[in-house]
Amino acid sequence: MAFIVHNTHTVSDELLEELKLVSVSTASHSLVEMGYRNQYMQGVMPLSFPEDQQSAVGRAVTLRFIPLREDLVKQQYTELTESPHRTALESIKQNDVLVIDTGSHMETGVIGDIFTRRLRYLGGQAIVVDGCIRDLQRVKQVNFPVLAKGVHGGAIPRSLMSVGFNEPIRCGGVSVIPGDIILVDRDGAVAIPPQCVEEIVKSARAHDELEERWIKMKLDEGASLHTHYPPNAEARIEFEQWKKENGYA
Amino acid sequence: MAFIVHNTHTVSDELLEELKLVSVSTASHSLVEMGYRNQYMQGVMPLSFPEDQQSAVGRAVTLRFIPLREDLVKQQYTELTESPHRTALESIKQNDVLVIDTGSHMETGVIGDIFTRRLRYLGGQAIVVDGCIRDLQRVKQVNFPVLAKGVHGGAIPRSLMSVGFNEPIRCGGVSVIPGDIILVDRDGAVAIPPQCVEEIVKSARAHDELEERWIKMKLDEGASLHTHYPPNAEARIEFEQWKKENGYA
Amino acid sequence: MAFIVHNTHTVSDELLEELKLVSVSTASHSLVEMGYRNQYMQGVMPLSFPEDQQSAVGRAVTLRFIPLREDLVKQQYTELTESPHRTALESIKQNDVLVIDTGSHMETGVIGDIFTRRLRYLGGQAIVVDGCIRDLQRVKQVNFPVLAKGVHGGAIPRSLMSVGFNEPIRCGGVSVIPGDIILVDRDGAVAIPPQCVEEIVKSARAHDELEERWIKMKLDEGASLHTHYPPNAEARIEFEQWKKENGYA
Amino acid sequence: MAFIVHNTHTVSDELLEELKLVSVSTASHSLVEMGYRNQYMQGVMPLSFPEDQQSAVGRAVTLRFIPLREDLVKQQYTELTESPHRTALESIKQNDVLVIDTGSHMETGVIGDIFTRRLRYLGGQAIVVDGCIRDLQRVKQVNFPVLAKGVHGGAIPRSLMSVGFNEPIRCGGVSVIPGDIILVDRDGAVAIPPQCVEEIVKSARAHDELEERWIKMKLDEGASLHTHYPPNAEARIEFEQWKKENGYA
Amino acid sequence: MAFIVHNTHTVSDELLEELKLVSVSTASHSLVEMGYRNQYMQGVMPLSFPEDQQSAVGRAVTLRFIPLREDLVKQQYTELTESPHRTALESIKQNDVLVIDTGSHMETGVIGDIFTRRLRYLGGQAIVVDGCIRDLQRVKQVNFPVLAKGVHGGAIPRSLMSVGFNEPIRCGGVSVIPGDIILVDRDGAVAIPPQCVEEIVKSARAHDELEERWIKMKLDEGASLHTHYPPNAEARIEFEQWKKENGYA
Amino acid sequence: MAFIVHNTHTVSDELLEELKLVSVSTASHSLVEMGYRNQYMQGVMPLSFPEDQQSAVGRAVTLRFIPLREDLVKQQYTELTESPHRTALESIKQNDVLVIDTGSHMETGVIGDIFTRRLRYLGGQAIVVDGCIRDLQRVKQVNFPVLAKGVHGGAIPRSLMSVGFNEPIRCGGVSVIPGDIILVDRDGAVAIPPQCVEEIVKSARAHDELEERWIKMKLDEGASLHTHYPPNAEARIEFEQWKKENGYA
Repeated sequence: MAFIVHNTHTVSDELLEELKLVSVSTASHSLVEMGYRNQYMQGVMPLSFPEDQQSAVGRAVTLRFIPLREDLVKQQYTELTESPHRTALESIKQNDVLVIDTGSHMETGVIGDIFTRRLRYLGGQAIVVDGCIRDLQRVKQVNFPVLAKGVHGGAIPRSLMSVGFNEPIRCGGVSVIPGDIILVDRDGAVAIPPQCVEEIVKSARAHDELEERWIKMKLDEGASLHTHYPPNAEARIEFEQWKKENGYA
Repeated sequence: MAFIVHNTHTVSDELLEELKLVSVSTASHSLVEMGYRNQYMQGVMPLSFPEDQQSAVGRAVTLRFIPLREDLVKQQYTELTESPHRTALESIKQNDVLVIDTGSHMETGVIGDIFTRRLRYLGGQAIVVDGCIRDLQRVKQVNFPVLAKGVHGGAIPRSLMSVGFNEPIRCGGVSVIPGDIILVDRDGAVAIPPQCVEEIVKSARAHDELEERWIKMKLDEGASLHTHYPPNAEARIEFEQWKKENGYA
Repeated sequence: MAFIVHNTHTVSDELLEELKLVSVSTASHSLVEMGYRNQYMQGVMPLSFPEDQQSAVGRAVTLRFIPLREDLVKQQYTELTESPHRTALESIKQNDVLVIDTGSHMETGVIGDIFTRRLRYLGGQAIVVDGCIRDLQRVKQVNFPVLAKGVHGGAIPRSLMSVGFNEPIRCGGVSVIPGDIILVDRDGAVAIPPQCVEEIVKSARAHDELEERWIKMKLDEGASLHTHYPPNAEARIEFEQWKKENGYA
Repeated sequence: MAFIVHNTHTVSDELLEELKLVSVSTASHSLVEMGYRNQYMQGVMPLSFPEDQQSAVGRAVTLRFIPLREDLVKQQYTELTESPHRTALESIKQNDVLVIDTGSHMETGVIGDIFTRRLRYLGGQAIVVDGCIRDLQRVKQVNFPVLAKGVHGGAIPRSLMSVGFNEPIRCGGVSVIPGDIILVDRDGAVAIPPQCVEEIVKSARAHDELEERWIKMKLDEGASLHTHYPPNAEARIEFEQWKKENGYA
Repeated sequence: MAFIVHNTHTVSDELLEELKLVSVSTASHSLVEMGYRNQYMQGVMPLSFPEDQQSAVGRAVTLRFIPLREDLVKQQYTELTESPHRTALESIKQNDVLVIDTGSHMETGVIGDIFTRRLRYLGGQAIVVDGCIRDLQRVKQVNFPVLAKGVHGGAIPRSLMSVGFNEPIRCGGVSVIPGDIILVDRDGAVAIPPQCVEEIVKSARAHDELEERWIKMKLDEGASLHTHYPPNAEARIEFEQWKKENGYA
Repeated sequence: MAFIVHNTHTVSDELLEELKLVSVSTASHSLVEMGYRNQYMQGVMPLSFPEDQQSAVGRAVTLRFIPLREDLVKQQYTELTESPHRTALESIKQNDVLVIDTGSHMETGVIGDIFTRRLRYLGGQAIVVDGCIRDLQRVKQVNFPVLAKGVHGGAIPRSLMSVGFNEPIRCGGVSVIPGDIILVDRDGAVAIPPQCVEEIVKSARAHDELEERWIKMKLDEGASLHTHYPPNAEARIEFEQWKKENGYA
């Protein structure tokens, strides 16, 4: 049956670029405040992440695996030129993020270094797996953001088969809809409805300048949470003053 | 994207009727012996089951829920006349079994007594949920086979939304493909690839007569597992003799 | 430190009596609709429940256990005349429900038949345990509503000690504040903020008459979910007509 | 290597008979008080239990399964006349209890109705499984105490093989040594070191008369836990008086 | 109700300093030998730990969260000048360790970099959370010992509210009482009853000299566990000799 | 009872050396293809691993712990000169790997730095624990491969006792038979039936040259998974050409 839910907004590459400056924690909390309670993916952690990269951002392409059924795997390989997960991988475009639903299956790995390498070549920005990857050692050598729940030595044919491409899926207890904006960093991953990206970027920018510089400076001078986090009226005047004096406003 | 795996066999109502005489345990084990390792649904137990019924059998109709996303739930109710899970329920035909994938979500219930009552009216044979049902007390009053992993007081809008109808899904760690034959009894549920039903019925019939009568009789007379379960050559002669003497052969 | 959150409403015994007619499922869903997302206690099920009772209702008295520390247990028994959990039990008044937080500790039982018997004598209406009870056989003989997560043969001194009485606690993933109204039935337990009881009773009453009689009657005659659950405009006219004809309006 | 731990006491059939009057909860708590902290088997519950039986008692015979390895299963069936679990079952003598360690494996069943029937014939008193049984419906028809962690439709060859007979094993998080005395009732199972049985029986007998009659009578008359459970000095005089008056002392 | 258990000993800053030389493993095992069976916090691991620090030590200040209830959160922010967790944080004094009980709630983070920074300024030595922290990347930049069960992008208002300050709590399955001495290192955290610190320091000092130097030296020369760990009579003479020869005794 | 399953093949030290070049992922997948479905140990991860080492390989020596029983621990220390786990450790020979079954017990540690140091001296290659180790900081200083499910501060006498040496055991959900070849790397551990080692080495060698050089080179040039992984007929010709041109064939 045709998919019932779908995203209606799109996000420009420029906005994606700006989103890279927002942390997963900041975005997750902003989304809760905007009324999206459940967008941080629980338990999906960066197992491979380039040292020199702060975050990665892209548009969700989804892939769904279900437990292998012996006759249907044969059917797939007879009827199709390619297995659907290979088709999914080959469809990756610049600024896509591949998100994989295995039903939290921890008994085999679905992504290894070859798939990761191909995805990187095609312009993919990250891989996020609600399950296991395999060959972590070699995956790390590809130097690309790969997030998952764990590691398993087995490969797909041990116990899974792919059945859905660009459907709405589940990952880390969160719905991921094709076209969702996926932001990942060392704290994990968050699925952002496309229409929310602009507000998140804007509020993070406003907030971050305040927080990252002045509040921390004041805390290091002994300011109290009660007066300075968030700043009360008096502190806010102090802050405005400081901004003027330092040429920020 | 179009679904990639699909059943190619169908099963007559007559054969479904015969399958009712096979137990879930017998069918599960037969499937392992036929090379289908993973067809018994783990942890999905009968929470409501008519006292006077031994089992239920039907063709799988599938429904998939994912975690609620606040904007998309609104979209569903704006764009569609009906939510997909209501469409799924209304599509039920004689000898269908509704199988629901919630991703093992234990934090709200997806089936209550009204849905169960409607499904029964339409000729459905059972409901199987990889998650929770609600209002168990009233569901029991409908006197209809409902299997699930647990009970929760909440309803769908608490945390889920339906997104897929008659797709391949997961339930109890098992793949369920539309058209699979679902057999349920007090031991739980098993998904049977349609092309396997005939062999299961045949082998169960042969086996059951032997086991249910003669082996148990012999065990109660003190026969050893070593000689009589399964019967060795000598015991088999004894059995043939007994069958003749009692008019079974 | 003094407790920070507390209930400010109270509920009359008459209203408690009316709440008994509402099911846990109905109340849980009403609370979600009223903006209280998390009031149904997950995984806390009736292990003992009188056959002739539909539900039980009362005001929460709370008790908190933490893991036993060897020196502090000795201190308790030296400094106090009575252990705090005995004091809690003896404080029970008419229409109280005892709710116990053990931190989901499954490694010993905290309630047996003697405590249950005493609580019943004092007018308590139910016991709800986020953990295990012991001596289920004898607890059942008391014929009193006891809900818990499981059974363990051990007793309190095996691994727990009581430290808090009438504090805010956790039970089944839900906050329970002294004075919350606890409703239990065969579907489990729900903690109702006192100010919500009246609305729940009212909306359940309105809803139930409709649902319990007419909708089920219509469904049994073949009405569709699309038109009759909830009833659309046309069905609602039909319903009003039926009410008039049958003397309900 | 030869087993390192072993029981050195034995228990007479007469004492086993007396132990039947003690509940699993009473025995578990007595053992904690005697310094045996970990003898109640957590999560192993009666799935089949004769209605007219209060408890079952016997000497532990142990069996250990590990995950199937494909070559070694073939080896077993080539080198041995019988699989070890069949040998274990056939070795059962009057007043034995079969205790099975599967490593809490929930992915197949190890005991069905035929094995249960044979064990009953040989004088076995109960079966206790740290894992799953299969064919619960037919097992119940044997009307024999069978305790386990769950139900699975699969059979042993799906994923297990037996490797040890009458070794020390784990069951429900508890060590079970061949010759341990196993007591089971509707609250589960407890493994009793043989040298402890006499003391448990004695203390239960003393305690139970007190508790089961007088304390409950007093509680039903309104006595407080503070004075009557356990009875304080004054209550004890009252109790002695009551015993004299009623001809118990 | 007033707290029932409380520490009666205090520990000097000098003794805290000496405790820093003891490892969490050594202290945990010493406590078991001293009759305190359950003091190591299971599953609470260092997520941020300064590279140049071996351990941290301090006096427990406790904070308890329970699941958010919508009306009570509003009440908190109306009735109080500050939320209790901010009050708790601001109360931190030199050589305190903040220990937080969230009920093992893994669905939001309760500590981020700002709170950590403030706690460090006030003289706190570590933060230990039975739940999740957020913004791990920035927390790491504070370069301060923070131990927790996991990471979540959400913040407190997503699903928790604070209700207790300096109460007895649970953390990692262990009771933590205000004033307990908390020792953390890369192996996790242990709660030490204050009266035990002196003995632990003394026995660790005696033991460590032996173990850390001579035993390891002997093992590297090929000594057997049987003779040298712990040293038997002969080895002990050898050790005394070695100490004399090397000027240690 | 004598062990029922046992390995019948042995593997030369030379072949072990060659196996070191194969990754755990490659070996796990090869075993699935050879019909051994369940040889990768789930959840057993390297907690200590020498930086300059790619993998470790050796013959399994097994050790089994069960929950401590108070009387039997005393018996062990009275009847035996040495506890069985010390005997096991002292029995280690060149190219052994110690594999320990604790029943996934996460409540105490069974291996610390002293045992690790002794095992290394005796020629052991790695330690693999289905449970916890202790004193991770010092274990890391030994610079030796130690894999486990977690860390706990407690030591063996807290809750375990050893009962079996060189028996078939379970580790990470996998059977380990004495003499199995254990391969560990940063992806975890795999138990290889000895008769399979040669084929794994051979197929890995063939496969790796192809994969590690040419496929990755081609992917980095933009080759598609469809044509080059695995290489289709055309690509294979291209590969043969490349090998010739570069002097590999």
